Order: sequence, then structure tokens, then C-alpha cells
Amino acid sequence: MIGEIHNVKIGQLYESRRLAHEAGVHRPLQAGICGTKKTGAESIVVSGGYKDDEDYGNVIIYTGHGGQDGSRNQVSDQTLDDPGNAALVTSHLEGLPVRVIRGAHSGSVYAPTGGYRYDGLYRVTSYGSKLGIDGFLIWQFRLEAYDDTPPPEAVQQELPESSELLPAPVSEQPPTGTEAPERVTTSVQRIVRSTAVTRQVKSWYDGACQICATTVQLPGGNYSEGAHIQALGGPHNGPDITGNVLCLCPTCHVMFDGGAIILLDDLTIVRHGERAGRLHTHPTHVIDVACVAKHRERWRQ
Amino acid sequence: MIGEIHNVKIGQLYESRRLAHEAGVHRPLQAGICGTKKTGAESIVVSGGYKDDEDYGNVIIYTGHGGQDGSRNQVSDQTLDDPGNAALVTSHLEGLPVRVIRGAHSGSVYAPTGGYRYDGLYRVTSYGSKLGIDGFLIWQFRLEAYDDTPPPEAVQQELPESSELLPAPVSEQPPTGTEAPERVTTSVQRIVRSTAVTRQVKSWYDGACQICATTVQLPGGNYSEGAHIQALGGPHNGPDITGNVLCLCPTCHVMFDGGAIILLDDLTIVRHGERAGRLHTHPTHVIDVACVAKHRERWRQ
Repeated sequence: MIGEIHNVKIGQLYESRRLAHEAGVHRPLQAGICGTKKTGAESIVVSGGYKDDEDYGNVIIYTGHGGQDGSRNQVSDQTLDDPGNAALVTSHLEGLPVRVIRGAHSGSVYAPTGGYRYDGLYRVTSYGSKLGIDGFLIWQFRLEAYDDTPPPEAVQQELPESSELLPAPVSEQPPTGTEAPERVTTSVQRIVRSTAVTRQVKSWYDGACQICATTVQLPGGNYSEGAHIQALGGPHNGPDITGNVLCLCPTCHVMFDGGAIILLDDLTIVRHGERAGRLHTHPTHVIDVACVAKHRERWRQ
Repeated sequence: MIGEIHNVKIGQLYESRRLAHEAGVHRPLQAGICGTKKTGAESIVVSGGYKDDEDYGNVIIYTGHGGQDGSRNQVSDQTLDDPGNAALVTSHLEGLPVRVIRGAHSGSVYAPTGGYRYDGLYRVTSYGSKLGIDGFLIWQFRLEAYDDTPPPEAVQQELPESSELLPAPVSEQPPTGTEAPERVTTSVQRIVRSTAVTRQVKSWYDGACQICATTVQLPGGNYSEGAHIQALGGPHNGPDITGNVLCLCPTCHVMFDGGAIILLDDLTIVRHGERAGRLHTHPTHVIDVACVAKHRERWRQ
């Protein structure tokens, strides 16, 4: 059951995991991630169980599963072999929506004061690994609310005493746009973002990929993409500067963002673990080696 | 000057093209498209000059420039060599925002009753050619309002008599999202959409591209994209059925969507005008040849 659950509205509160389970909103009673590598993640619970989590309302930096002892301390490395983590990777690669449920906890102003609240659909827009607060490797997933998912308010909500399923609190829905039957509403697998800086870098290469040297020629002009080496936004927080941007063909861009291609400090290309020549660079384009190192770290290399 | 003009708000009215010119909103006094192939299109005026235009408010099917006689009849084919049309292609390939100005005309319920109105930023999400109402080739561009561009209301507005620059009418701005400093706001070069149907098709190929046979292997799994042969949404209006979807690598997807690759009815691949083998197909996957023909028509082949 990927996507919305029939008759469950955003803002719906549940007193317990069991009630959320019975509603079909988050089926496991304990696991924070519901899903498999094959199907993607149906839903996650954000409830303060991982100290590296960050909650910005419509953006969540969500730590993957595993590696904790009974006291919620990280005592070993997390891996992508964990079924929950693998499920979130599939959600990212396939562009599948994930239901987000926030549980009461003190670590987020967006959490309910009690119980569990269904907060709508989010996309996994990037992921990567880093050393967590406790010094072990963690995998983190950046989730962004869909544009038509109203972000939760940073206010405290009272959980009513009744354990019955409750009507959703009044939440401001965006305009439904009945005037635009033409708009194609589908979920998104991939978004290539464009900034003044990416356009500057691309102008130096006239569409030629810095990794594979391919030029994607279209009737209207050459096509290339600006790829941030250290990704923008949390948890990566790369800078939007020309030294942090590459001009790539679409396929090398996906491989670079997905960790199948990394760069060494001398700009040697490593593809699937094997050296594959050196990055093509324009004389004006000075690559920021610190960003290159951050990209490698993200992919544990 | 790509993007917003300082101090010009959405909904701003101008009594004449000259006043819009002086405000910097749309600089040419006659041409409907402002821009060049190199820079992309700054702005367009939608004012009913082309009978094939369609206006859905937050989606506009905009006919390119050229081929008309003095009476607004199409008397010859349009081409992408026209600087305005080439500018809109660049806006599409680079993901650049285009200012939309609607002029008074009877063909759209979203047009002002007099003068010209700045309606905010739109993206060029696809383009292609077709035979227009008058029987000549036209190029059409699909423009979609950015998610934070409020769509114009389908109501009539009075143009005040004064020719001074006027304060913007009250328009509902979306929430500014001050709670989410984390959200990365950039323009979008490319969006890969995902539907249940594209996921079904992709499942048959396990990530292998039907055109070049490449499998993009990532640490988290294989990556491929579902490509609609006849694009979804106007002006293409392709169906979301498995017979209209291909499983492609990102680069072949861009080339197919951009007209650098087309298919013949026997599923021979034609890349840059040269035959390049036959499309790989799974036994379960029956390609809809009518959609293949529509895709060829879009690229004049």
C-alpha cells in the first residue's frame, strides 16, 4: 500500500502504534520503516529514536535503521542491506511517495504532544552515509513533503483521551486547482535542479560530459546537467559554487549522485570501484577538492 | 534579465506594450517572445495572436513564432531556427523560468479585459511540432506555472484609466514557508515523472535500457526511467498505458524526449537520422504503434 490510505486525512492522530497499525497507516508495531527493497518504503515513523535525525517540518533528515543497543546508542555501523534502509533507497530511485508519521518526542517542534500523527506524503530526495554523533556510520535520507502536502505546524496539539479513531484536525489544504484539468499529476522520480552556478559551469563545456565526454545532441541544442559534487541541502549542505559543480550527461549524473562514480583528490574517476581516466576540466574551472572528499565520504569511500 | 523583475508583482497591469517594455517585464514592443537561443526566453506575451494557443490558467499551450501573414493566418511552416522559438527550446533544456504576460483577448478566460498583465514565472515542460489549424507546421511549447506561482483567476478585471504603473491587485500568495529554511529553492531543469504504469514497464527490464541496453547500476539497485512515447498532457495528450511507455536510461530518455531518437513502426531505432538497431522488448510488453507514430509526428518525422 504505497501512497495515501483511503479515508485517512493528513493530521489524523492515533493514540498508539497499534491504532496506527489497525488503520493501515504504519503496519509494523515496532519497526520505524515499513517496506522492502523490492516495493520501496510504505511509511516511516519519526519519533526521536535516532539522535542524528533533524526535523524541519516539510524537510526531514531521517536516520536509517540499525546499529543501536537497547539504550538507543549507536554501537555499530548501519548498512544498506538492512531491509528498511534498502526500502528507502528504492523509494528514492523509483520516486515513490512515503507516508510520514510523527510520534510524540521532545526532539522536534513538529511532533505531536502525545501519540502518533499522520503527516502526509514525502519524497526521498537524496541519501548518503556519514559518521553519526556516536561515531559510527549511519545512513541518512532526506525527505521532502510533496508540494501539496501541507507542512505540519510547529504548535503543540492535545491528544484527546478517547482511544477511538479521531476526526482529523482542521488543516489548511492548498487550493485544489479545479481550474486546471490539464495539469499532469504524477509522482516524481527525479528532479534536476538548475541554479545560476550550474548554468555557468555548463556554459564552459558546451554540453560535453566531464566524466564520459559524451555530448547529448538534440535538435534544439546540446543537453547537459549541472551536478553538485557535495549535494545542496541537509544532510549534505554543499555550497552552490562553481568549484562544487560538474557538467555531466544525464546517466553520469545519476551514477555520480547515486555513488556508482566517485572522484579521487587528483580527479581520477572511479566507476564501480575501477579507475576510469581523469575528469575533463576547463582551464577556468577549479574543482573544490574538499567537496570531492565530502562526496566520497557520503558513499563511504 | 531571466526571472522576476525587482518590484514587479504578479498581477501587475500595464495599459500598453510600451509600459510593459518600460517596466522591463517584456522588452520588445511587438515580438511575442523575448530572448535568444543562447540566453533562453526572458518573457512571452500570450495575447491571442495564434489560433492554436490553449490557455488553462496554470498551463499554457503556446504556439511559436512565425509563418503568419498580415491577417494572422498561418501561411507557411514555423521552424526552430526562429530566434524566439530557439529561445524557448533553450529555456526548456536549461530549466529557465519564463515571465508570462497575458494581453487582453477573447480567446482565454484568463486574459485581462484590457491591457497586459504580468502573471508570474512558468517553466517550459515540453515542446514539439504538429500541423496547426491552418494546415501548416507549428511548434508548440507547454508552459506550466511554478508551484508557487498563483494561477490567474478566470475572472474579468477592469483596467483603470490612468496610465501610471498600478499597484498589484490583491493576489493570494502561497505560504512563504518561513519554517523551512532547509528547503532548497532552485529552478528545475528536468523532472522525471513516475506513475504506476511506468513502474510496471520498468519492472520488466530490471533497469536495462530498451534503446542502448545499458543498465545503470547503483549501490542501492538498478536505475532506469519510464518514458512516455507520446507525452502526457497537452499538446501531446498521450495515454498512460504500458504500450506507451519505454524503460530507458537517463541519457536515452533525454534524447528520445528531445527528438534525437525516434522509432519506426517496426521499432527500428533512428538516432540522429541513422538506423541503430531495434528496440529491445520484453515478450509481455506490446508497444502501441499509434503512439510511436505520434512521437515521430511531434519531431516532424
